[in-house]
Amino acid sequence: MKKIQCVVLGATGVVGQHFLRLLANHPLFQVAAVCASEGRIGQRLGDVNALIPEGIPAESADLRFSAMDAKSLASLKVQVAFSALPTEVAKEVEKDLAEAGIHIFSNAGAYRMDERVPILIPEVNHPHLALAREQLQHSKGFIITNANCTTTGLTLALLPILPFGIRKLVVASYQAISGAGYPGVPALDISGNVIPYIDGEEAKVRKEVAKIFGRLQETKIEPMDWQVYAHCVRVPTLVGHLLSVHVEVENEPTLEQVQACFENYQPDRPVQGLPTAPVKPVVLLPEKNRPQPNRDVMLGDPVRAQGMTVAVGRLEVEKQVIRMIALSNNLIRGAAGGSVLNAELALREGLL
Amino acid sequence: MKKIQCVVLGATGVVGQHFLRLLANHPLFQVAAVCASEGRIGQRLGDVNALIPEGIPAESADLRFSAMDAKSLASLKVQVAFSALPTEVAKEVEKDLAEAGIHIFSNAGAYRMDERVPILIPEVNHPHLALAREQLQHSKGFIITNANCTTTGLTLALLPILPFGIRKLVVASYQAISGAGYPGVPALDISGNVIPYIDGEEAKVRKEVAKIFGRLQETKIEPMDWQVYAHCVRVPTLVGHLLSVHVEVENEPTLEQVQACFENYQPDRPVQGLPTAPVKPVVLLPEKNRPQPNRDVMLGDPVRAQGMTVAVGRLEVEKQVIRMIALSNNLIRGAAGGSVLNAELALREGLL
Amino acid sequence: MKKIQCVVLGATGVVGQHFLRLLANHPLFQVAAVCASEGRIGQRLGDVNALIPEGIPAESADLRFSAMDAKSLASLKVQVAFSALPTEVAKEVEKDLAEAGIHIFSNAGAYRMDERVPILIPEVNHPHLALAREQLQHSKGFIITNANCTTTGLTLALLPILPFGIRKLVVASYQAISGAGYPGVPALDISGNVIPYIDGEEAKVRKEVAKIFGRLQETKIEPMDWQVYAHCVRVPTLVGHLLSVHVEVENEPTLEQVQACFENYQPDRPVQGLPTAPVKPVVLLPEKNRPQPNRDVMLGDPVRAQGMTVAVGRLEVEKQVIRMIALSNNLIRGAAGGSVLNAELALREGLL
Amino acid sequence: MKKIQCVVLGATGVVGQHFLRLLANHPLFQVAAVCASEGRIGQRLGDVNALIPEGIPAESADLRFSAMDAKSLASLKVQVAFSALPTEVAKEVEKDLAEAGIHIFSNAGAYRMDERVPILIPEVNHPHLALAREQLQHSKGFIITNANCTTTGLTLALLPILPFGIRKLVVASYQAISGAGYPGVPALDISGNVIPYIDGEEAKVRKEVAKIFGRLQETKIEPMDWQVYAHCVRVPTLVGHLLSVHVEVENEPTLEQVQACFENYQPDRPVQGLPTAPVKPVVLLPEKNRPQPNRDVMLGDPVRAQGMTVAVGRLEVEKQVIRMIALSNNLIRGAAGGSVLNAELALREGLL
Repeated sequence: MKKIQCVVLGATGVVGQHFLRLLANHPLFQVAAVCASEGRIGQRLGDVNALIPEGIPAESADLRFSAMDAKSLASLKVQVAFSALPTEVAKEVEKDLAEAGIHIFSNAGAYRMDERVPILIPEVNHPHLALAREQLQHSKGFIITNANCTTTGLTLALLPILPFGIRKLVVASYQAISGAGYPGVPALDISGNVIPYIDGEEAKVRKEVAKIFGRLQETKIEPMDWQVYAHCVRVPTLVGHLLSVHVEVENEPTLEQVQACFENYQPDRPVQGLPTAPVKPVVLLPEKNRPQPNRDVMLGDPVRAQGMTVAVGRLEVEKQVIRMIALSNNLIRGAAGGSVLNAELALREGLL
Repeated sequence: MKKIQCVVLGATGVVGQHFLRLLANHPLFQVAAVCASEGRIGQRLGDVNALIPEGIPAESADLRFSAMDAKSLASLKVQVAFSALPTEVAKEVEKDLAEAGIHIFSNAGAYRMDERVPILIPEVNHPHLALAREQLQHSKGFIITNANCTTTGLTLALLPILPFGIRKLVVASYQAISGAGYPGVPALDISGNVIPYIDGEEAKVRKEVAKIFGRLQETKIEPMDWQVYAHCVRVPTLVGHLLSVHVEVENEPTLEQVQACFENYQPDRPVQGLPTAPVKPVVLLPEKNRPQPNRDVMLGDPVRAQGMTVAVGRLEVEKQVIRMIALSNNLIRGAAGGSVLNAELALREGLL
Repeated sequence: MKKIQCVVLGATGVVGQHFLRLLANHPLFQVAAVCASEGRIGQRLGDVNALIPEGIPAESADLRFSAMDAKSLASLKVQVAFSALPTEVAKEVEKDLAEAGIHIFSNAGAYRMDERVPILIPEVNHPHLALAREQLQHSKGFIITNANCTTTGLTLALLPILPFGIRKLVVASYQAISGAGYPGVPALDISGNVIPYIDGEEAKVRKEVAKIFGRLQETKIEPMDWQVYAHCVRVPTLVGHLLSVHVEVENEPTLEQVQACFENYQPDRPVQGLPTAPVKPVVLLPEKNRPQPNRDVMLGDPVRAQGMTVAVGRLEVEKQVIRMIALSNNLIRGAAGGSVLNAELALREGLL
Repeated sequence: MKKIQCVVLGATGVVGQHFLRLLANHPLFQVAAVCASEGRIGQRLGDVNALIPEGIPAESADLRFSAMDAKSLASLKVQVAFSALPTEVAKEVEKDLAEAGIHIFSNAGAYRMDERVPILIPEVNHPHLALAREQLQHSKGFIITNANCTTTGLTLALLPILPFGIRKLVVASYQAISGAGYPGVPALDISGNVIPYIDGEEAKVRKEVAKIFGRLQETKIEPMDWQVYAHCVRVPTLVGHLLSVHVEVENEPTLEQVQACFENYQPDRPVQGLPTAPVKPVVLLPEKNRPQPNRDVMLGDPVRAQGMTVAVGRLEVEKQVIRMIALSNNLIRGAAGGSVLNAELALREGLL
């Protein structure tokens, strides 16, 4: 099978470089182009400042930055774009490229709350892919977004306990500095410190959770009506968003029942076996002091799915309250890996 | 007026050294003795490894460690003990000294849940001092404890909103490594990491909050029946416990009403003007990204009360929910400073 | 005596805010104006983002940013400017203001290597003040610079051992992130990391040391001909530049002789008693694991001189080699405090 | 070929766990036993607290701790011991086991300066293996040590420039907290701080460098007579010892000549192709701000040799002075990996 040619938009940033890493030697996709700000055009990708320890993959190091327009990308036979663009840039570029027939898998927030665009987390809401199919009625290409990095971990951690009837969430986050991109947070602000505010993040969690768990009614999503409260807080860790999660549910399950839900949880068939899909999207850790960013942020199996598994620990159940600590990799599951998995699902479902 | 002679128990630790610092040049108390583990007896206090930047106060540097028994301390005319002992040691020593007539102000957890012993935070529950008076019916000395460092900040932050009728608390903490004492947390565990578990801490928060806000019925405290949920989490900061606080109340106040409660809050008269009492025990910060440990952990006025004020920020009100971020100094307000303030109150109330 | 009216240039940055703090309630100087980038003109100083824990001093909070030209400053009767400007801006502004008769005490590097401008560290080379006097032959105002933050600590640490005849220096630094200003170093780069390169810093150390210890020949400084090697390295600390210092000297002193030089060292008479001058500009710490940034960075007595004393430890002597660890406060002694002390000296010497 | 059965001594510590990781699936060695303190005997290895992110390898998780004596180990057919014991314990145990015929590859410092025992770094001094052969004249087993973690990186970085005739070294280190083992350095001491002292480390560097580069005269090593000065300093990084290295040499090479020495350097034939030997034991990085612990600490190829390559950067040459920054992985090349490589060499050379 011939690989699908793709472009990475915003390839100089932290998430962009994770896209490059995840797409290197990918069985289905091939990075044929890279784009960044205009000043980069013509420069060699391999000369860019590496922001992740793994560096720029050798196989794409010799690519040169293209202009970020449909014509230039068409000349490189690009069918799919993985976008790590800043929101403001994404707003214009993603729309233009989609209209020109390039399918967009985006980490940007620009179109997440657009009612025609799904926020897709395959294990959580793969039926929402229907929205992308609907977009194709009006446009040559579609836009699919992954969720905000904090939302992503939260939704996956909640997945096994959906049957108990969620009513209210109270969440406090411990978010890594890499979540702010590069250069991001000044060291002078965060070293040995905690900053209890991340611009716009709490509203995103609230709205995105409602949309992701929303019900698809024909071509519209009716958002879930849970009460959601979140404090989003930056802490001095490098990678991994940890969450204190308090859930109030309709039923009154026992601890054993909730544990069993976690242990028996399996992704739906449409997701199973996708290259970047972990066998277990959520694992329950038995140790009393886990998950921890430094230890658990790369969980995920097979190798290609490392960083795609959400770790849950400290599970407690008390009447109608379920409490846990959850950890997700904000750069992989909560960003680049999420969109790569979305593209794999879209391909399997015949959308590419 | 002659100063009251006192001993610092556990003077080699972090909290012990804060006791020494806060009692240096104190208008009412004079450090006449110091105790630590048996091997220290006879050693010079000034030769101890300084664990706080301010070091050992010059005025007590030449003290030599005494044996930790009532007889030795009596010979030094000690009337009051400030205890920074580990729980296990405190259990025996504090009881023995109290029975021998030395009044104990303790940061140790050993007797906090003893029903005869008050957990005293003057601004919150000064009437509980009655328990200490009651102890004197059966013992020559009494024991008064300060609350756990996490509980302390929480109770003070809740003080202004008590009138709205608290029903439920959901708290997540961001606790500094100094809260674990010295040597405490290995750097290998916490550097650039988050540890979502602190042994015994969550149960303490739950029980202590219930007791501190409990109603004094004659000589017993009837614990408050709020629902309290806490996740206690260690983060790589040095000093300052930050809290994400979600409160559900009976009333439905407006944001303005809640703000007014914070702004108009004043400590009760018995506390006003005590040397270590801040003019404002709780301040509401207007900035959207505050409080932060590195910036706000030393709030408190006058100078002697630095680190005694709890900073609150990000106040939000939504129907019956009040949300905020609170920060307290775990070594001062939540430990040594708390007990010094307790002793000042006890003295004013005629208990010493 | 009437205080001298002064302006702080670059008042929004970390060093600028230290100038404001050090000049608050200063017995000789009064902050009458503040300047920053053009967009700030008219804004209230107190509304600026506080970058140091002490915040903006109340006494200057109501100042409004002025235009950074001689005319505007003349209307505020400004005689002296303390400059925390970036080098590029300093190049033009400092020259213009000096020509217009405002005396400049600058932390910027723009004119440090100008042969008419002294790099002044009062305890080290107060005779170099003659250069400023010489400038007044050709200009209505003069420029005096303090040294680079790394150079400053090094020169003060070497001061007591000058008599042994220094020939070669091999230095490795451990520099705090605050040395890079704000926003400065991205947290993603330096958290839990070491960056063995600081742009231009090593050349500065080499050239500035040669000039500062140079001999004044009439109106010129003949640089010292020591061999100087430096590795300047960023480490994840907040404040304080620590140095590993290896010195090769002509003589072969004993350890006792070198220790005595440190212990007996006293600043020259012209410096003694200046408000910001520490009684001991260099102290030798006896502990084997000191100095440490977190413990020793605020050394200095009297209160106004806190952070002005360089701490030296681990003194070793082996034949013609003297080795030590030195620590200086890069924001105070190595920046704002250095220039304030320079201004105090200039005033005492009749230059203002 | 049948694998050689081995034991890991001190398997609960950080270095011990790296031994287990490196020996998992090793083509030549098989972990047949693990030992730790007496209280562990009978416990399951997999139940030990994992101190490294990779955890305990599945293949040895079911091993149970044995008694640490020759008889117990003989019953498990152990021929080789990899020792991560504390020095004091190593002193006795390693000698006993060696006498009983178990060959020791040790990371402990106990026998490093014993004149019969080599400090072996295969690329640097493989001829010193002769000392082990000599030991077998008097004992049934031999002891071979790897160097101290700081020494190891230094000697490998110097290897390519030996031809220029080294005379003097001035070194300052930036050592990670993992170098102190577990629990090791308290977070309260090192968070955001630098500690300019590591007990005994500087003397080790001096003596070990002299011995490792010493000449083998029959069965004795005559230590090298270079002047060696080292400041060993702890910084808040997790893994990786970085070194500022100043070398004075007899010749006066050009920068190009020195660069060529690094680029052309190849390990001697006896080392080439050993499973844990990197193709390039030393690499010269061209970037001006490298090496950095967070980016370069896992260099080494093939996969089994990750963390075995020393990274060198910032090469400067000025007359008879060569300067550089070097970085080595203190847990792999400077500890467990070093001894595994030693064992591989000993096996190839017929000593096992």
